[in-house]
Order: sequence, then C-alpha cells, then structure tokens
Amino acid sequence: MSVNIPRGTQDILPGTVEKWQRLERIATDICRTYQYKEIRTPIFEHTELFQRNVGNTTDIVQKEMYTFTDRGDRSLTLRPEGTAAVVRSFVENKMYGDPNQPVKLYYNGPMFRYERPQSGRYRQFVQFGVEAIGSEDPAIDAEVLSLVMDIYRAAGLKKIELVVNSLGDQESRQAHREALINHFEPQIGEFCEDCQSRLEKNPLRILDCKKDREHELMKTAPSILDYLNDYSRTYFEKVQSYLTALDIPFTIDPTLVRGLDYYNHTAFEIMSSAEGFGAITTLCGGGRYNGLVSQMGGPDAPGIGFAFSMERLLAAIEAEGVEWQTDDRLDCYLVSVGEKAKDYTVKLLHDLRLEGIEAERDYQNRKVKAQFKAADRVQARFVAVLGEDELEQNKINLKDMETGEQEEIPLDELTSTLLKKLEAK
Amino acid sequence: MSVNIPRGTQDILPGTVEKWQRLERIATDICRTYQYKEIRTPIFEHTELFQRNVGNTTDIVQKEMYTFTDRGDRSLTLRPEGTAAVVRSFVENKMYGDPNQPVKLYYNGPMFRYERPQSGRYRQFVQFGVEAIGSEDPAIDAEVLSLVMDIYRAAGLKKIELVVNSLGDQESRQAHREALINHFEPQIGEFCEDCQSRLEKNPLRILDCKKDREHELMKTAPSILDYLNDYSRTYFEKVQSYLTALDIPFTIDPTLVRGLDYYNHTAFEIMSSAEGFGAITTLCGGGRYNGLVSQMGGPDAPGIGFAFSMERLLAAIEAEGVEWQTDDRLDCYLVSVGEKAKDYTVKLLHDLRLEGIEAERDYQNRKVKAQFKAADRVQARFVAVLGEDELEQNKINLKDMETGEQEEIPLDELTSTLLKKLEAK
Repeated sequence: MSVNIPRGTQDILPGTVEKWQRLERIATDICRTYQYKEIRTPIFEHTELFQRNVGNTTDIVQKEMYTFTDRGDRSLTLRPEGTAAVVRSFVENKMYGDPNQPVKLYYNGPMFRYERPQSGRYRQFVQFGVEAIGSEDPAIDAEVLSLVMDIYRAAGLKKIELVVNSLGDQESRQAHREALINHFEPQIGEFCEDCQSRLEKNPLRILDCKKDREHELMKTAPSILDYLNDYSRTYFEKVQSYLTALDIPFTIDPTLVRGLDYYNHTAFEIMSSAEGFGAITTLCGGGRYNGLVSQMGGPDAPGIGFAFSMERLLAAIEAEGVEWQTDDRLDCYLVSVGEKAKDYTVKLLHDLRLEGIEAERDYQNRKVKAQFKAADRVQARFVAVLGEDELEQNKINLKDMETGEQEEIPLDELTSTLLKKLEAK
Repeated sequence: MSVNIPRGTQDILPGTVEKWQRLERIATDICRTYQYKEIRTPIFEHTELFQRNVGNTTDIVQKEMYTFTDRGDRSLTLRPEGTAAVVRSFVENKMYGDPNQPVKLYYNGPMFRYERPQSGRYRQFVQFGVEAIGSEDPAIDAEVLSLVMDIYRAAGLKKIELVVNSLGDQESRQAHREALINHFEPQIGEFCEDCQSRLEKNPLRILDCKKDREHELMKTAPSILDYLNDYSRTYFEKVQSYLTALDIPFTIDPTLVRGLDYYNHTAFEIMSSAEGFGAITTLCGGGRYNGLVSQMGGPDAPGIGFAFSMERLLAAIEAEGVEWQTDDRLDCYLVSVGEKAKDYTVKLLHDLRLEGIEAERDYQNRKVKAQFKAADRVQARFVAVLGEDELEQNKINLKDMETGEQEEIPLDELTSTLLKKLEAK
C-alpha cells in the first residue's frame, strides 16, 4: 500500500534538480567573491526564538508555524524563516568577538509555513539569504543589494524591479509613529479590527493592511521620508548614491514598511515584472535590523540581510523564458558482448570513473542492440564495445557517436584516449 | 534575552562549513562520474511511511521519531532515514517507467532521531546516501560499494574496513529462519524478553541482540551462508569476484544481518579502524532490499543502497589526522584614504567581484593602518590602495603581499592586472 507525499511539499527529481544545483552554484560562487560564508543552523529551534524575534503578532507566528513538543517536552518549531536562527547563532557563538567585522553569512535551506498551498507556494520551501552583521556603513547596505541583484542577473532574470525605502532610525520612527497616530486616530472606527488594535501597538502596520488599503486616509498618510532626521536622511542618500554608482536601477516607495520594531533604515523588495508571473510578484525582501542582535542578548550590533525563495526564483526564470544551458551528455557507454567481457567492464568502468569520466554500462542484462539504444538515450558521446575476441586480444572498439568514426585501440589505453578526445570536444 | 540552540543539534559555522562543502563536492563529483543523480525529498513525511517501511518494531520507530500533528491534523514525522522517502518518491513518480533502468539516485540532507546526545551523535544529523533501484545484477551491488569506498578514499580515509554478508533470497532466508528457530527454541527461556518475542516474529534479529551476545548458542547459531540456495550463492560469489576485480578488500561476516523482511542478498557495513575513534565504529551501512518497492505499492523492482553520516565521516577524518588543504586567502583587499576614495571603492570592489575576484574592503570606518591589518587577517594576496590623489589621477597603487612589490597602475586596469597576476600565482 502506498503513502503519498505530504500536502504542500514536493520532491525535486533528476531533470529538475539540475536547475536547483545551477542556481545554488551561481549564488554560492557570487557569495564567495563577495566574501559571504555559509552558515547552517538546525531545521528546528526552540519555539520561543520565533515568538520573541519574528514577532508574536505576525501571521507567521500566529497561524503558520509547525510547532510540536519533543520527547523531552520542549516546544520546538520548524524554522519559518532564516534570520532569527542566524542571529541566535551569531550571539550564542559570540561572533561579535571576531576581529573581522562585519560578519558576512549566507544560508540556503528549507523553511516551513503552514499556508494554503497554491501555485508556486509550498509549505516547505527553500530560502537563500544573507546577513551582514556588525556594520552600519551605507556601503554594506548597497553591497547586500548588489549581491542579490548579481545573483538574479546571473540566473538570467531581466524583468526585475528593486524598490527601496528608509524606515529611519529610532528617533525618526518615533516621530513618524506619532504622526501616524494623529492621522488615523480621528477615523480609526472606519478601519478593520486588526487596524484598530494596531493603532497604539504598531501604527506602521496599518499601512500594510490588505482590507483597508482603499481607505482615503491610506493615500494621505504621513510618509516616513518626511520624518527622517539628518542622520537617517544622509544615510538613505548614501545608499541611493551607491546604488547609482553600481548601475542598479531602483524606485523609492515610502509605503514599503516592515512592521517589527527592530527594523530600521534601509528596507527593500525585489519584484518580478515578467508577464504572467501571477499575483504575488515579490521575489525577495530584506532590510536593516539594528535592534535584533541586542534583543537576542548580544551587543548592540547592527545588521542587514535579505532572503529569497528559490521556488519563486525558479518560477520567475520560467516566466521570463530564460534558456537553461544544460549538458547532461554521458561521456562514455561501455557495451559488452558475452559474459566474460561483461564481467570485465566492472573494472574498466571504474578505471574511467576514477579519472572523472562520466561512464555507464548495462545492468539489465540487455542484448547488444538494446545496450546501444541505452547509450543513445543518455546521449553518450562515445561508445566503447568489448567482445570476447577483443578482450582476448587486449583491444577495445571505440566509436565517436557524433562523427560515427570507429577505431580499435589497446584496452589499457581506453582511459587516456578518452581523456584526450573529451578534452578536444 | 537569549534562546539557545536545541539540545542535540549544532550550528555549522564558517571555519568548519568548508569541510562539509569539500566532502559534499567530493561525494557529488563521484556520483556524477557514476551517473547517480540527486533527489530531494521533504524534511517530513506522513508518519505511516516510516511505521510501515522502516519497521514498527525497530528502536527508530518505537522510540526515536520526531512525530507531530500538523494544523490539518495529519501525523507527520521528521525523516529518521532516507531510503523510505526515496522509494516512496520512486513509486509515486512512477520512475519504474523510465527506460533508463536502474534509476540511480543520491541524497544529502538532515535526518532526525531523538537519541541521547553524545560525542559525535546528534539528534539532527546529515546522511549522504544512494539508492539504485531496478536492477538485480551483482555488478550494481559492486558499483554501490565501489562508490562509497571511492568517496571515503577521496576524503582521505585509509583505515576503513568493509564487511559484507549475504542474506540470500526469500527461499534461503526461510530455510535459515527455520534453522534458527530450531536452534534457539530449546533454550529460549535463557534469553532476554525481546529475544523471546523475536523467536517467532523475526529470529534473525536475535543475532543482533546486545544483551545476549555472550550466550553460547549465539556462537553456534546456524550461519545464513550455509542456507543459501544456488541462485543466492552464485549471486554472492559474483559480488565478491567483482569486489576483488575492483581491488576492494573485504571480509565476510555471517552475523551481519538486517532485521527487516525486505532485505536480502548483499548486506554491508564499513567500519573505521582508526585508533581512538570511539565505541561506535560503523561509518556506513547498506544492502539490497528487493521487497521494499512492491511493499510500497510499486512493481517488483529490486533495489540496493547505502547511507552514511557526514558527522561520522568528519569524525573519522579527524581521527586519522587527515590534512585538509584549504585555500581561504582573499584575492584583493581595497584600502582607501579619504571619503571620496572610499565611496569610489563601492563600484571598484564590484568590478573586481564581477570578474570572479574575491575582494573586500572596510565597512568599519577604519583608519588606513587598521585597514592594512584587516587585509592581513584575511590573508589578502594583493592590497590595492586608493587615495584622493590617485583617484584624481585615475591611478591606484597595487601591492603584492607575498613579494612586497608595489606598482602604480591605471585605475581602469586594476581588474585586468589582477586577473593576470592571480592566474600566474
């Protein structure tokens, strides 16, 4: 009897997995030139970590977490996002003591949110993200943005739009907060219940409300950009000038907010403008979080990061019709005739593979003709045929499947001959 | 306030993660030459999958699984091992219909068992494994063994021992089973309760018992090798002759058993014989499972595979004192003097990185001397120094940190000059 895959998850199979591998190679290669190093944190964390640091009032924490009790009665949660665990690790491992600051990290791995599965949205999905912790130089904000834009460009995306905003520092946010309360308070009764409770707790999140987005007060709401103090304004201007120096086009959207208290200064999103990409166009989100490290018990270290979903990146690539260059041709297929020759190919095959040659033989007891067919199916560049006669004479027949050329060569020269011929291809 | 990492899990941090990356590269490169392709299955599966197919009476299923109920009231379990999910995917995705048989797959990812944490044993650990499904050619058994031995050798292990056994086919196992019952039944009262209940259910597992291992009946127990029928004996002999042809040393241990019904023919383990490696010496386990695919609702497809823990591989490498070659020198560090020059390095740094040069600059507002110190710490091969004067003259000073040589070059030639010099290194 069969058991199926859990709803909202997927198997990534050969034929598709190569696309993932290619994107991962692109992202990690670029991270290497940018000097971001990999960090791997556990799949689950203590539930508290997310409750305290992702925000107890967010949908993620309230409705979407996979939370369970282990056999030792601990409340654990499958990580719904990457930043909290990376910052937890930064604090727990005292990385703030490293003389190389900022600490620049990337991660790539599965995240879990119990949402209604739909096209392109999974309950287990993969996020690639970076965090640069320990610097409040606007150049590092630009670096982080440049890094993700380079990844997207290298992946072949052209139709992407970067939107940035500044949330300012604490002082600027406080001034803006008061302006928002003054703005919404007189008519707050016309807003949804969530917004009513947000008014005092976190008025910035009212701007995020999907239900009330058409209310006229939304359009006239005070913009954070008008409340930035000198430091915050200069900071944001620097970020913009670096983006311009880096030839990265962007637009400013003062309604781009992040609701949590520890976010400040730079906030950004990258959207796909590819036709037919669907309703959710956001590919990547990120921003600066200067309060998070200290909130987790570390020193007052500023941080910035982003995360993007690999599934959505793949979908954007599909939507833009980017061509994948793939080369999955086999180097050499060994065809054998007769039991003795067949046995001999066990060792012969291994000799080829030891030299890095992608090689295969038959394991299905196929007749010679079917072995050739199998070689065709995997697009073998070369087929080497070994019969009992050849084996006795220490020879093997090598056929170039592109040109049709055949030659008989000494058996012990198969590897070296193939290496030469493959290099010339 | 701080929340710590869950007990029995670990963060893999820069400085250590490079070892993991290297082992993964070795394993995946070898899988490529062997034509095994990657498969990624979800982190959790329906609990039933493991209950039915890992074996309801095993410690894993009875005591060690991370099982929980999701918000849709499904019983899910964090995967404790890899084979069940791969076979589930093979069946669910009808891979048996692929004309390329056997289907050769590898996986690499976290597994979860609630065990008492101890040195080298984690509740979340990483398994690398392969499954070859669809062939019952003894040459594929040898291929799978050769693959893991090649990975271990490439990782630098020398002190490893391969132990093989045959469990025979169903007929052979049945004959052996009867012999075991006849052997133990008269004195079964002297055995532990577990063994008493195993006598009828699965007498083979008595041989695995740790409590009764010193009982004299254990030493005289009938060996499976004496009950192999012709087909099974010939099969096992073929596997051995292929291992010999491949220069893979091995010993035969008839007490090496796998308790589950769907295992048959080849079973194997690889042990570390490195001194001081500790009590648990097994690095890798595997074997043939001809009954598993059909048990999961697929056709009668034979399979074979292995899995090893990356943590234990790393520990074995440490125990043998294998040297890691690492090259984590930075290609170029940009030192700047003055605000204008510093701003300019944002773009300059990016130009270098776009060409694949690993480059860095300061984000901590460091003075020149401290920037040079930072360059030293990351072992920069080259340091390029840009001051306001140089910037005005479109020049930059490039210093080779190994030779101490310095030269002034045109600013727009920095990338090309560095590429040339780095290639020459």
